[in-house]
Amino acid sequence: MTATPGTVPDAQAGTGARVVFQTAPDRYRHWRVGVDGPVATLTMDVAEDGGLRGGYELKLNSYDLGVDIELYDAVQRLRFEHPEVHAVVLTSGRDKVFSAGANIRMLAAAEHAWKVNFCKFTNETRNGIEDATACSGQAYIAAVNGSASGGGYELALACEHIMLIDDRSAAVSLPELPLLGVLPGTGGLTRVTDKRHVRRDLADYFSTRPEGIGGAKAVAWRLVDEAVPRTAWSETVAARAAEFAARSSRPAGATGIELAPLDKTRSDEAVGYRHVSARLDRAGGVAEITIRGPGQSPPADATGIREHGAGFWPLAMTRELDDLVLDLRTNEGELGTWILRTEGAPALVLGYDRLLLANRDDWLVNEVVQYLKRTLKRLDVTSRSLLALIEPGSCFAGSLLELALAADRSYMLAGVFEDEDPDAEPAVIAVSEMNLGPLPMGNGLTRLHNRFTGDPDALAAAKKQAGQLLRAEDAERLGLVTFAPDDIDWAEEVRLAVEERASFSPDALTGMEANYRFAGPETMETKIFGRLTAWQNWIFNRPNASGPDGALRRYGTGRRADFDRKRV
Amino acid sequence: MTATPGTVPDAQAGTGARVVFQTAPDRYRHWRVGVDGPVATLTMDVAEDGGLRGGYELKLNSYDLGVDIELYDAVQRLRFEHPEVHAVVLTSGRDKVFSAGANIRMLAAAEHAWKVNFCKFTNETRNGIEDATACSGQAYIAAVNGSASGGGYELALACEHIMLIDDRSAAVSLPELPLLGVLPGTGGLTRVTDKRHVRRDLADYFSTRPEGIGGAKAVAWRLVDEAVPRTAWSETVAARAAEFAARSSRPAGATGIELAPLDKTRSDEAVGYRHVSARLDRAGGVAEITIRGPGQSPPADATGIREHGAGFWPLAMTRELDDLVLDLRTNEGELGTWILRTEGAPALVLGYDRLLLANRDDWLVNEVVQYLKRTLKRLDVTSRSLLALIEPGSCFAGSLLELALAADRSYMLAGVFEDEDPDAEPAVIAVSEMNLGPLPMGNGLTRLHNRFTGDPDALAAAKKQAGQLLRAEDAERLGLVTFAPDDIDWAEEVRLAVEERASFSPDALTGMEANYRFAGPETMETKIFGRLTAWQNWIFNRPNASGPDGALRRYGTGRRADFDRKRV
Repeated sequence: MTATPGTVPDAQAGTGARVVFQTAPDRYRHWRVGVDGPVATLTMDVAEDGGLRGGYELKLNSYDLGVDIELYDAVQRLRFEHPEVHAVVLTSGRDKVFSAGANIRMLAAAEHAWKVNFCKFTNETRNGIEDATACSGQAYIAAVNGSASGGGYELALACEHIMLIDDRSAAVSLPELPLLGVLPGTGGLTRVTDKRHVRRDLADYFSTRPEGIGGAKAVAWRLVDEAVPRTAWSETVAARAAEFAARSSRPAGATGIELAPLDKTRSDEAVGYRHVSARLDRAGGVAEITIRGPGQSPPADATGIREHGAGFWPLAMTRELDDLVLDLRTNEGELGTWILRTEGAPALVLGYDRLLLANRDDWLVNEVVQYLKRTLKRLDVTSRSLLALIEPGSCFAGSLLELALAADRSYMLAGVFEDEDPDAEPAVIAVSEMNLGPLPMGNGLTRLHNRFTGDPDALAAAKKQAGQLLRAEDAERLGLVTFAPDDIDWAEEVRLAVEERASFSPDALTGMEANYRFAGPETMETKIFGRLTAWQNWIFNRPNASGPDGALRRYGTGRRADFDRKRV
Repeated sequence: MTATPGTVPDAQAGTGARVVFQTAPDRYRHWRVGVDGPVATLTMDVAEDGGLRGGYELKLNSYDLGVDIELYDAVQRLRFEHPEVHAVVLTSGRDKVFSAGANIRMLAAAEHAWKVNFCKFTNETRNGIEDATACSGQAYIAAVNGSASGGGYELALACEHIMLIDDRSAAVSLPELPLLGVLPGTGGLTRVTDKRHVRRDLADYFSTRPEGIGGAKAVAWRLVDEAVPRTAWSETVAARAAEFAARSSRPAGATGIELAPLDKTRSDEAVGYRHVSARLDRAGGVAEITIRGPGQSPPADATGIREHGAGFWPLAMTRELDDLVLDLRTNEGELGTWILRTEGAPALVLGYDRLLLANRDDWLVNEVVQYLKRTLKRLDVTSRSLLALIEPGSCFAGSLLELALAADRSYMLAGVFEDEDPDAEPAVIAVSEMNLGPLPMGNGLTRLHNRFTGDPDALAAAKKQAGQLLRAEDAERLGLVTFAPDDIDWAEEVRLAVEERASFSPDALTGMEANYRFAGPETMETKIFGRLTAWQNWIFNRPNASGPDGALRRYGTGRRADFDRKRV
């Protein structure tokens, strides 16, 4: 079902509409995708009347969540459906304006949770652009053919190469601080210094100039890579795209697979897909999610994978999980705890893992693994308590063990449920090579390494068990699960954990989980989701931004914001 | 003046009292310091009626800012006045309780800015304890002789070794999340995983158990290093202290120098010390700070330094700057911009730098350098816009160049003020070895390296100029200053920058500066000040914590908090 992009009526959501993340190019309203041999062009041309919610017009290529849902879809499809594309030019269909960034009226009217979720998704999409450049051989080039402000410039910052038209009016800018009293919300502050290496004092100056910086100075300060006169624009963009395409690791002549629409059912009580489902327990504030393992043995080789297409289990399961995470995150804010279960045969999951690992040089297999990596990262930054329940009949092995490792806690039944099925096989988990490198977290560590930060002996002991089916006692001893209660204690212990979680402050849980999930080192990505997002959350909550006299609310009224000047 | 610890009446401060940071052991109300050969014992015994502000009692060794001001003073004095101390035991003077952490009534009643400033100072004090252990050969041992909750456990976490009495009732805990709906505010979440390497899922469980964990389980989970029965307590603590003392790098038989009271004057318009002064421009929201260089040549050697004692210029200047930063931060929240100037002879500053560098093996010289390092770090995490003005007669050289490098922007006059003093020497700055290692920021980089993150050529070019007196044109070309306007543009450009800063949202400035000041890598310290603090700021601002029905306000009333369950 679902079908139409945008929103469908929803009695539960505060806005009266449920956001739908599935879309396809023939339904895009804001983007055009053109493919010309090894170069694709993504053209942003936002329909002013195409806002996801009412009450604002998307002028000057400003965007809202609906615009970004299309961008996300386009980036995904270029990876899977267009292996022949080796470079992507991201540009604007407007004259004189590249993008004005996130729509300010939308932000000013939105409740706090919506703003935070919007920023999270747009951040993930921009990280996905960098991931396509780094891991898929599809380098993104920002062809900034008019002014790029705020989120518009941040979109360019996510690209590998930024070209700015040099026409004495086009500039890049981060006007959020001087005009709106908030921070750039999609990684701008982090990428300016950590990716583009703009000197911090120049970055400070730049971020206080609403009119921005263009031309030669923008190049000298590293804000863009080149400033190109209008007369040479088209040919220079084409030349640069050809250069980046020529350096790509992608194969020539490959044929893509189609990302057919997901087979999804959605009601107030449940979400269903082929391999993934969720029961929504509104009274308890819990979503019970089940991921089903493969129903059959894997194909023999890459040719077999291609024959399965979008039905290939790891890809199909990942697409469904990705959609479910986005759906629940955006539409079900009051379901604060997600219980993660799996169903299936561990040996089959490990078989698929072996197939993926044996064919990692294949472009499609690489895409499947990278997509699973990104989807698991989405889980890591989801502000919901994640509890994994490992019971008889489950298949937390290899790729799917990552779900338990991503959880805040895991409970594994020691033995079986005597009343239900005394003859069942006790649950097992298994580490595979998929847990040892291909699916890193945003901090650059595997979830296993992150779990054993500072404890190399425990990490080595866990690695040594790769391929073994481990029962609860061994899993607990190795530190791979949190608790291993037996049949007698299980129901009570799990119930208490779930009820207790629902009784805590959801804000404090979000802060605690954001800290504990990322032990050890930081990267640009974790800095964006951790440090920058946390500051922005705080600022969004302050009267100076969001109060009736705050800068966000007063923008465009002709009246200046009335600030409490006390520094904190 | 100042004299009494605690507060003095202040018409400007919201609370009607100005916080005073200067104190001395004979005036402590909450701590006892005992020195027994190479081992000192810091005993926490908080006076219940000794709160810095009214309205709460400091029961169960709970603390407020006043308690921590004494702890900070004690840690400083042990370093300078007691070189013979090679290990410090931190313990409680109470029976059954080590410390209940930050006082909850105080937190619940405090305005947001007070809470944030309080957490910042306590964080700095705990970082200072780790710095004494790592850089001064004074290892801190937490002798947790009763329950340590929240900030009480976090104080223990700042120590190198944690001993917990094993008496079936003593436990360590982080009850903030389940009881108060906030996060532990002094680095607990970061140190649990990143310093003590507690597994993240166990840390999650631990942080939701108000009753905490004691005994063998606390050791097995790495929450403490050892659990010691009461019968063996005293002798084991003594033995452990002796072991750590024996490993110290401190010299035997050295004599300390006395940290005599600062000669300070303070009014609503100005703060004055011997080498540092500040003019407080309340209308403009600006503090104009001047640091004066040495008035005479440095002594010849370490013996000469010792003769100067606390009057030795680098030490005296650092103590004054430290006190000023704390005073302005805490008492002058509406002075949102600090202008940093220096006065004096660059050559003399460089002379002192050479003396310090030539005697770095001397314990006292090491202390002076480490103290300057910590004071500059305090500046880095100060939520005020920092602008350095480099004018004729200034001495931004070596150690003092760090002030300009710490600033968000620097302006250096090209040439001289023709109307004022046409015959003056133009301003110069100079890089010295002090800028190349001894004074790292919290992220582990020198301020010079941090400035040129990702630009090794620029860093190398700046280093190459070490020892040279650089005029504005060269300084700007090398990227060592932000702007170098001439006499004609100076006044207007500086005025605009200062006025503009005052017109921006102070919250957004705080968030932007916190990001731009720390480019590149993160450490436990920057994670505490960046990620953790930002999350905590956000949570403190949410109704779920601080609203009338929030957990902080309802604590102890017998009524549960009323949470908005929506996850953000």
